[in-house]
Amino acid sequence: MTIRVLGLCGSLRAESFNAIALRLAGDLMPEGMTLDIQDIRPVPMFDADLLTHGFPDAVQQLRERIRSADAVLIATPEYNFSVPGVLKNTLDWISRGDDQPFAFKPVAILSASTGPVGGARMQYDLRKIMLFMNALVMAKPELFIGQAAGKFKDGVCTDETTRKYVGDQMLALQRWVGMVRSMHQG
Amino acid sequence: MTIRVLGLCGSLRAESFNAIALRLAGDLMPEGMTLDIQDIRPVPMFDADLLTHGFPDAVQQLRERIRSADAVLIATPEYNFSVPGVLKNTLDWISRGDDQPFAFKPVAILSASTGPVGGARMQYDLRKIMLFMNALVMAKPELFIGQAAGKFKDGVCTDETTRKYVGDQMLALQRWVGMVRSMHQG
Amino acid sequence: MTIRVLGLCGSLRAESFNAIALRLAGDLMPEGMTLDIQDIRPVPMFDADLLTHGFPDAVQQLRERIRSADAVLIATPEYNFSVPGVLKNTLDWISRGDDQPFAFKPVAILSASTGPVGGARMQYDLRKIMLFMNALVMAKPELFIGQAAGKFKDGVCTDETTRKYVGDQMLALQRWVGMVRSMHQG
Amino acid sequence: MTIRVLGLCGSLRAESFNAIALRLAGDLMPEGMTLDIQDIRPVPMFDADLLTHGFPDAVQQLRERIRSADAVLIATPEYNFSVPGVLKNTLDWISRGDDQPFAFKPVAILSASTGPVGGARMQYDLRKIMLFMNALVMAKPELFIGQAAGKFKDGVCTDETTRKYVGDQMLALQRWVGMVRSMHQG
Repeated sequence: MTIRVLGLCGSLRAESFNAIALRLAGDLMPEGMTLDIQDIRPVPMFDADLLTHGFPDAVQQLRERIRSADAVLIATPEYNFSVPGVLKNTLDWISRGDDQPFAFKPVAILSASTGPVGGARMQYDLRKIMLFMNALVMAKPELFIGQAAGKFKDGVCTDETTRKYVGDQMLALQRWVGMVRSMHQG
Repeated sequence: MTIRVLGLCGSLRAESFNAIALRLAGDLMPEGMTLDIQDIRPVPMFDADLLTHGFPDAVQQLRERIRSADAVLIATPEYNFSVPGVLKNTLDWISRGDDQPFAFKPVAILSASTGPVGGARMQYDLRKIMLFMNALVMAKPELFIGQAAGKFKDGVCTDETTRKYVGDQMLALQRWVGMVRSMHQG
Repeated sequence: MTIRVLGLCGSLRAESFNAIALRLAGDLMPEGMTLDIQDIRPVPMFDADLLTHGFPDAVQQLRERIRSADAVLIATPEYNFSVPGVLKNTLDWISRGDDQPFAFKPVAILSASTGPVGGARMQYDLRKIMLFMNALVMAKPELFIGQAAGKFKDGVCTDETTRKYVGDQMLALQRWVGMVRSMHQG
Repeated sequence: MTIRVLGLCGSLRAESFNAIALRLAGDLMPEGMTLDIQDIRPVPMFDADLLTHGFPDAVQQLRERIRSADAVLIATPEYNFSVPGVLKNTLDWISRGDDQPFAFKPVAILSASTGPVGGARMQYDLRKIMLFMNALVMAKPELFIGQAAGKFKDGVCTDETTRKYVGDQMLALQRWVGMVRSMHQG
């Protein structure tokens, strides 16, 4: 089975460790699994008054891409012990409407940070947020890339252990998508 | 003692219940306490690359206003079980730099929502976020305005119980600012 | 398909609202779904030194019952904004060992409380805990029974709305167990 | 000023890393600061029916010791991504009654774990719990002792970096107690 994964990055920084980790995940995906990274920068600030005129184009396009994807992979830093506002703002738009595209969608989360904790304060907030949208976030393996400054160089991950963990998570995501497909067809 | 409180609202909607509740808090403040509500709409999306050129003007002004205020009052809805991305994005900017203005600043939180839970899933995430910034968030009384649609009409809070709770929280904030001042001078 | 649900209550109080709500859930289960409520009182305090001698009998029996059940329903109050220690202590025992019985087990959560928030500060902590054990906690419908003192009398739930919500959650649990079965067989 | 700190450990294991870390904190306290470690093992399972007959002796004694202490230091592992049930159960007892002894009490938290995250998933749950009791939990420095197995040997902490962090946290706790005293007298 082919699995098309949509990738979202919580950092807008060009040399973001999370952007690099997201590309790495795409490189390490098994045969038949592909990654399409979507930029969240064009998404405007959420304003319910704006929504009364319909979804802005950037939001509408992102919603359709999430809907048609087989899974979503979110790579994001932790800001102030929680989810970056930029990413949360995108999710605030996505969550609206009767046809919310994350419902029963397989999702995996990874985070890279310069500190030792690797984003652990943030990932449970993000899981709670995805719960609201009825997404099926994969439980294990969790992936925290701590001390990221020593593991990435010139836009590439140079740490073999990290590469192995990322590859293992993508294999687990492949299995998770298979399980969720069975769930829907059961 | 005079207490100048800076107010931040997590919703951009013109008729937001939280914006109304924030204005109500200003109306119900005791003698000698004043509220200055700051619009967060001009704050751009956080991007660490942008920050290398210094804080954007809207961020710099907001930082200075927080710094010079005696306390901050945050009124915000809950989106997707957590803090609105628009508000979190503002806090992501504020938190940067060595001269972080929330450090040891007295803060109070209130939330209004249309559901019965009144924002309770969100307030602890917001407290965790403020903890990162070393803000001194008042513990009690917590304020959750549930079922808000029945308590506000034409931009005014029509529910006496809610008015009493908001007034009581402002009295508690006055005391909290006094306690924190003693703490700094002790 | 027959669905045997194991019920756990987080309160030891004889007239606990949560114990009553748990029994109510059993009464309202659809045809073919049954509830077996297990008392957690005999579970001793968790002590890793004790565990080196094997699981205590009460723990071993509970583990086997969870393993052989088709789903677990947890009804629990909120103490101090989080999961009661008594319930958490039971989960701390259950989580140990290579043959952890909650793995991929369908789980539903409900909570009753005397305040308006109904346990919302606690349920996400409990979900995070169950995540560690790889349990498949049903996302929706969430069930918070606030203001419980006015909804229960003489050990019976007298509130029709609450009865409807509890019954609806049991129907959703039936569907969830079906989905998870398909997932395993897929 | 003399500061008498009461110490609570969330693990009952004799060779618990957290028990060792707690004793280490006592050893590294500055002049005039002392640590009295209280065993929570005698505290029974919380049962509101029991409470109608008054606090059990072990609970009553612990409540009085917390009340008369100048600060409380909690050292605890993370079990299942949250606070150990044994510790939470103790806090569930302490929190009851009109004369709740943690109110406005300075508190510091540290955690040791064998994994890299060092208890970070747990500390924010514990902070939320202490918030309910109006405790004044010190914001910074947070202390997570990850990879503890390599940092402790024969009941002693052999890692200089960890010793420094623990000592620094005790100095910060000394300052925090001073600030809170000023707050009360202000």
